Amino acid sequence: MTLQSFTEKMRPAIEDELFQSIDRALSNHPNGLREMLAYHLGWEGQGAGPEAQGKRIRPLLALLCSVAAGGDWESALPAAAGIELIHNFSLIHDDIQDQSQLRRGRPTVWVKWGIPQAINAGDLMFTIAHMAVLEVGRTKTAQVTLDASSLLHQACVDLTKGQYLDLAYENEKVIPLEGYWPMVAGKTAALLACSTEIGALLAGCQPIRRKAFRQFGYSLGLAFQVLDDWLGIWGDTALTGKSVENDLVSGKKTLPVLYGISQKKKFAERWISGSISPDEVTLLAKMLEDEGAQAYTDAMADQLTGDALVALDAACDQNEAAFALHELANQLLRRNK
Amino acid sequence: MTLQSFTEKMRPAIEDELFQSIDRALSNHPNGLREMLAYHLGWEGQGAGPEAQGKRIRPLLALLCSVAAGGDWESALPAAAGIELIHNFSLIHDDIQDQSQLRRGRPTVWVKWGIPQAINAGDLMFTIAHMAVLEVGRTKTAQVTLDASSLLHQACVDLTKGQYLDLAYENEKVIPLEGYWPMVAGKTAALLACSTEIGALLAGCQPIRRKAFRQFGYSLGLAFQVLDDWLGIWGDTALTGKSVENDLVSGKKTLPVLYGISQKKKFAERWISGSISPDEVTLLAKMLEDEGAQAYTDAMADQLTGDALVALDAACDQNEAAFALHELANQLLRRNK
Repeated sequence: MTLQSFTEKMRPAIEDELFQSIDRALSNHPNGLREMLAYHLGWEGQGAGPEAQGKRIRPLLALLCSVAAGGDWESALPAAAGIELIHNFSLIHDDIQDQSQLRRGRPTVWVKWGIPQAINAGDLMFTIAHMAVLEVGRTKTAQVTLDASSLLHQACVDLTKGQYLDLAYENEKVIPLEGYWPMVAGKTAALLACSTEIGALLAGCQPIRRKAFRQFGYSLGLAFQVLDDWLGIWGDTALTGKSVENDLVSGKKTLPVLYGISQKKKFAERWISGSISPDEVTLLAKMLEDEGAQAYTDAMADQLTGDALVALDAACDQNEAAFALHELANQLLRRNK
Repeated sequence: MTLQSFTEKMRPAIEDELFQSIDRALSNHPNGLREMLAYHLGWEGQGAGPEAQGKRIRPLLALLCSVAAGGDWESALPAAAGIELIHNFSLIHDDIQDQSQLRRGRPTVWVKWGIPQAINAGDLMFTIAHMAVLEVGRTKTAQVTLDASSLLHQACVDLTKGQYLDLAYENEKVIPLEGYWPMVAGKTAALLACSTEIGALLAGCQPIRRKAFRQFGYSLGLAFQVLDDWLGIWGDTALTGKSVENDLVSGKKTLPVLYGISQKKKFAERWISGSISPDEVTLLAKMLEDEGAQAYTDAMADQLTGDALVALDAACDQNEAAFALHELANQLLRRNK
């Protein structure tokens, strides 16, 4: 079975589990509350549809890892839904924190309903996420259910840690290169590591194998973020859908930028002297490239991708789901580059 | 043993459990994150101390109910800490939503650290709250731990529902009287009901008795809120520490106000015609009283207090902890009135 055939089977089941999780929690609740969640998840409102829903990468990873580890994917659905809801809760709050007007081409929740209601909608989605995971108990023991719940909680602590650093870095002009990793470990890698580990946990893996699955998700998450940073500076705007100017103009502490700062050459000098205007972007992207930031970022992405695939191979035999995971990892890590 | 002697024993243990919960979650995490939580909980920063910590009513209720139901209070500590952390998470986010500058006489978290970091600090406290409850497993079975976790999650859903209604009501001039109860059931009663039920659960009570404990907390919560509304209009500012003007001037949909609106007399006419200025407050408070709002509010508070005490007596025999709970309820419901 290929990645595509796995995905065709799993995607509708993920969507249904997400829907049921919200439905269970919100029976007898005001419809306006449900509306905000359904809008954010891409089910309702203007622009609803597959584009607005995103790819549901995290739940797919959890389900595929469960199968690759010898389990079934159906009993991992509640945990997979919980992880996706945590991802979406964090997006609702991130959009407020970053004052982002658009998310997947649509106005963000806070733009439509105001900051107070958007904070509350995020809090609700956060709660429903954790309730969704408790449904693991439909097919697993209470102890396994608790273990899955604990994994997701730990990922949430790491997420808030990453977010804290990201927000704190906004106030600093210079951050040392090594400050990058704890930030992205929390913001991106923690939830992917949780996805792959939870799949293994629910397949009944012992701790050592679980850790290998976790390492796969963790390295994949770091590689994914490094690549995202690459695209944010040298990517083709038409393909990424992002404004390339954004990452340099907004002063984001991405890996190429922090590498550039660490080199203390022309880029660092320009960066420290003040904000970057959109018309300087092409020149500065070239400057970063000349100072070795692109080669460094490439090397890091390659190394982390390698780490991820080595961990995956250590975690499981070559089975259909493992091949599908390889394919998914390659899709994520060879995006328009 | 009196309420005071129970409190003297339990309060330091509650504070310690809160501290340990945060410590476990944040080992190896940036100190700035911990600082925000410790500040909000009244442990650190300017104005730290007992006044800034509040009374820890919810955890005390949980522990006393556990003892009243025949259990020990020590094994209920993790759940009690979780409840108090949920209460405090909701305060951090409420203060942003309501743009409140002060909390217990000190600048709120968002005033000190900005809205983005305050949202994140609330999210972190929310996570730690749920992790704290999972520590129930130190002394109880995995199933009981899951049941406790589920109770707290359900309370969180109800909290966000109440908050949603409260925020939605801000945009409406007129709300029917019956719209009051679902709002305060969520905002105030849900977490108190969770506190008393979780105490009973951990003492090993069967569902029927658990429901009686729950009813005690629920009615107590409603009575508490009704009294708070009373004080917000006719209370003595010097004693409550609140600005009495606030509740009428801010347009809050309290019980006396919704009763006054429902009467469609002079108060309703004035309310509908536009915002109320501070110098009208005395006159309007008298007008509400003359139109029966005070008598109605008194009657509701008395009825709900009666409901709470009847439920408590149905829930447990007359033991020392039950007496202490009576005393606590009376303290809460006879505040400066």
